[in-house]
Amino acid sequence: MELHFLGTGAGVPSKKRNVSSLALQMLQERGSTWLFDCGEATQHQILHTNIRPRRIEKIFITHLHGDHIFGLPGLLGSRSFQGGETPLEIYGPKGIEAFVETALTISGTRLKYNIEIIEIDEEGIIFEDHQFLVECRSLDHGLSSFGYSIQEKDSPGELLVDQLKADGIEPGPIYQKIKDNPTVTLEDGRVLNRKDYIGPDKKGRKVCIFGDTRYVPNLTDFARNADVLVHEATFAEGEEAMAHDYHHSTTIQAAQFAKDSHVQKLILNHISSRYQNDMLETLREQARTIFPHTDIATDLSHFQVPNQT
Amino acid sequence: MELHFLGTGAGVPSKKRNVSSLALQMLQERGSTWLFDCGEATQHQILHTNIRPRRIEKIFITHLHGDHIFGLPGLLGSRSFQGGETPLEIYGPKGIEAFVETALTISGTRLKYNIEIIEIDEEGIIFEDHQFLVECRSLDHGLSSFGYSIQEKDSPGELLVDQLKADGIEPGPIYQKIKDNPTVTLEDGRVLNRKDYIGPDKKGRKVCIFGDTRYVPNLTDFARNADVLVHEATFAEGEEAMAHDYHHSTTIQAAQFAKDSHVQKLILNHISSRYQNDMLETLREQARTIFPHTDIATDLSHFQVPNQT
Repeated sequence: MELHFLGTGAGVPSKKRNVSSLALQMLQERGSTWLFDCGEATQHQILHTNIRPRRIEKIFITHLHGDHIFGLPGLLGSRSFQGGETPLEIYGPKGIEAFVETALTISGTRLKYNIEIIEIDEEGIIFEDHQFLVECRSLDHGLSSFGYSIQEKDSPGELLVDQLKADGIEPGPIYQKIKDNPTVTLEDGRVLNRKDYIGPDKKGRKVCIFGDTRYVPNLTDFARNADVLVHEATFAEGEEAMAHDYHHSTTIQAAQFAKDSHVQKLILNHISSRYQNDMLETLREQARTIFPHTDIATDLSHFQVPNQT
Repeated sequence: MELHFLGTGAGVPSKKRNVSSLALQMLQERGSTWLFDCGEATQHQILHTNIRPRRIEKIFITHLHGDHIFGLPGLLGSRSFQGGETPLEIYGPKGIEAFVETALTISGTRLKYNIEIIEIDEEGIIFEDHQFLVECRSLDHGLSSFGYSIQEKDSPGELLVDQLKADGIEPGPIYQKIKDNPTVTLEDGRVLNRKDYIGPDKKGRKVCIFGDTRYVPNLTDFARNADVLVHEATFAEGEEAMAHDYHHSTTIQAAQFAKDSHVQKLILNHISSRYQNDMLETLREQARTIFPHTDIATDLSHFQVPNQT
């Protein structure tokens, strides 16, 4: 799992930061990429990465402001043009379907793949399969804005080959049988319990990606123990009143939230273009006084989500 | 008058060429800029020019394909964010209003200026004031696609000051009076005819900007004597069958059209990303064998439209 930041600015594009989008690459885990938000020129940013639009399997939209959705129609069209044929799911607040359908219809864009648009009408689990569970909660942004939690499921531990060999069980199809069944009877009559030959479960990882929001202390349980939290920090410390007026957060608020949620790492995102150069260092230091494991996202930066040990 | 090419590619953005947009800068003439098409990331391209979004007065859309319109909602929003307060007019085929209104409404984009959207339902004059006349004709692109002719009106010639002085008429308010009236009676009783003291009319310029199209020999009268013709050349010589199938033109067809229209200069636009590096030289040479005054547009290139002498 790797986070690729495609656009880390706020509101309007600048030369340094594009409007919002980030990709969660899960090539090893499921051979696909999930996108979170799709501001204008997200497909242009993708040209500078190893992301393949046809590998994008799901797009999660946090909220409907233009800097988070105006790149969607173009990306959908280009995904088709570039050979994408597998289905794509789009999750987002009510209105996203009308936006996408209107843009595709009026522009005469015919996709060579199916899209399913899932409009979210309440908090909770919006996707689950054998590998992942995605849940959402409402944020505080003056219009419907979601935070997403992507929870990788625990996977069974590895077969303890040394233990098996020590008990005289040599490698062969029997190993898979032991893995797949609670108990197995050997030809010599011995009964093996799987639990004696399997290491501990490999713990799944958790990534939380929040859309634009004011400080939301009520959501610390939702983000609790995440391996990575991506939180907006549109404003610097001291700008709490302005952050409140514009329904955004400050560096300090993001850091306090990360601390109270006991996450492993905080990545600040959605940085206003008023902050440039040295000021970015200041923003990071503001957050680090409260939560040391903080970084600031920049366009085209990427962060590995480490495997749990 | 200066043409600024913002996006000169075909269909999808590449690292070298963005999707379609070009600006006609008329800062000296009317203190404003007109935009023709607005593909995704047009506002991003503008960041690399001296174009000010708040100075954009009119946007003409040639047709509704995504690579010509998907940048419109973002540009409109940013124009407002960056202090644009003067009204803006958008001209385009039927459907452009629903696209713009849906995008702005769903994204909650509130503009600090008025937009007027004029959907074109027939060929002819779509705008006229004391300076300019804009006319459109239907092209051949499988859906409604327009070519626009921007005709600057002739302006009165300059006052022949040497002639006035030779006739004993010294500079003063009388000069303006002579300029403004067909005849003027001097204090000494002499009657002056304006036509004797005004040089020949300064001829207005004509710029033709075509959207995507097949070869349209029936439109040579429309483009006749243009100072600059911007014509698509999605395909190279020899690809006429493919050009026909996809409703586009070849280099040769664009050049033949320019020749038959007796324009001063042809600029090839909407170049497929299949043509790179040396091949671009080849495309230009193909056109120049038929029409020598041909150039190929590149992103962020600009061309002065010379004053008529």
